Amino acid sequence: MCKPWWVTRAAPGIATRIDPTRLPGRPCSVAAALELIGDRWSLLAVREVAFGNHRFSEIARNTGAPRDRLAARLKMLVEAGVLERRQYQQVPARSDYHLTAAGRALAPVLQALRQWGDAWAVTAVPASQLHHDHELDARWVCQTCGEAVRRRDLEQRTLVPGWDLVGPTIH
Amino acid sequence: MCKPWWVTRAAPGIATRIDPTRLPGRPCSVAAALELIGDRWSLLAVREVAFGNHRFSEIARNTGAPRDRLAARLKMLVEAGVLERRQYQQVPARSDYHLTAAGRALAPVLQALRQWGDAWAVTAVPASQLHHDHELDARWVCQTCGEAVRRRDLEQRTLVPGWDLVGPTIH
Repeated sequence: MCKPWWVTRAAPGIATRIDPTRLPGRPCSVAAALELIGDRWSLLAVREVAFGNHRFSEIARNTGAPRDRLAARLKMLVEAGVLERRQYQQVPARSDYHLTAAGRALAPVLQALRQWGDAWAVTAVPASQLHHDHELDARWVCQTCGEAVRRRDLEQRTLVPGWDLVGPTIH
Repeated sequence: MCKPWWVTRAAPGIATRIDPTRLPGRPCSVAAALELIGDRWSLLAVREVAFGNHRFSEIARNTGAPRDRLAARLKMLVEAGVLERRQYQQVPARSDYHLTAAGRALAPVLQALRQWGDAWAVTAVPASQLHHDHELDARWVCQTCGEAVRRRDLEQRTLVPGWDLVGPTIH
């Protein structure tokens, strides 16, 4: 897949990282994250590998992704350092996909999407989550003060230009 | 935009909802959520409206989205009940975009993507978040027991078939 010009081309074996000041629009970590994983099939592939399905055929079956698009997304996720390929058979050579630390760190993203989907996207909740002995009721909580995170208590601290209401100037 | 067959066609004014058992792959709320908002430009448009920019030109400038694709995504987000259009001028007729309750409920998704992006997608963090007087350090916490949510403490309770490791059978 052809990378847009704002993605830093990484050396082989080095995960892709994006210079936020070169993104179109705001210099934003959400935009950078979506550059690497912002695609239905990419996030569903991560879900499936997290679930314990590591082989291409399993990921294809359980995501429902077209095989050609899935292959492109898996390649992108390996380049982004979210998945890694491991050879599990030598003759013929076969490899499967495993989460890296960056891939495991996507669990809160999937959790957030799941809760939103349960509440707003589906006609009926397809599966619930048991946390120890009770139904999970997860919220974002600040670890420093113990308070639930509400938008109105947050303030942006700009480290690069482009974070006021107006946004970035054209560069 | 042409909807795939598994998306329930809603009447005008009724938000689109997806029958999870008709999705390709697993019957999954993450998949349903990504069907509605799983696109870089869609989530960045939501970010920008949440930030307080409501007009098409503002959203286009600050997301960097191509105008034709942004227009298609905004239409989809209105149909999905994530954004609503409000007329702000009569002659000539002009409207802008506002978050619905479903749109405001995407804040934890953006928060999760932002934290992941800060940690794994960018070469340097472009903006930090101040929570009251300290740096935000947000985690998912279960409101019932007060514990941070860890994957290993969770168990799926299947409400429809397709949630074991093997996944859905072909339907």
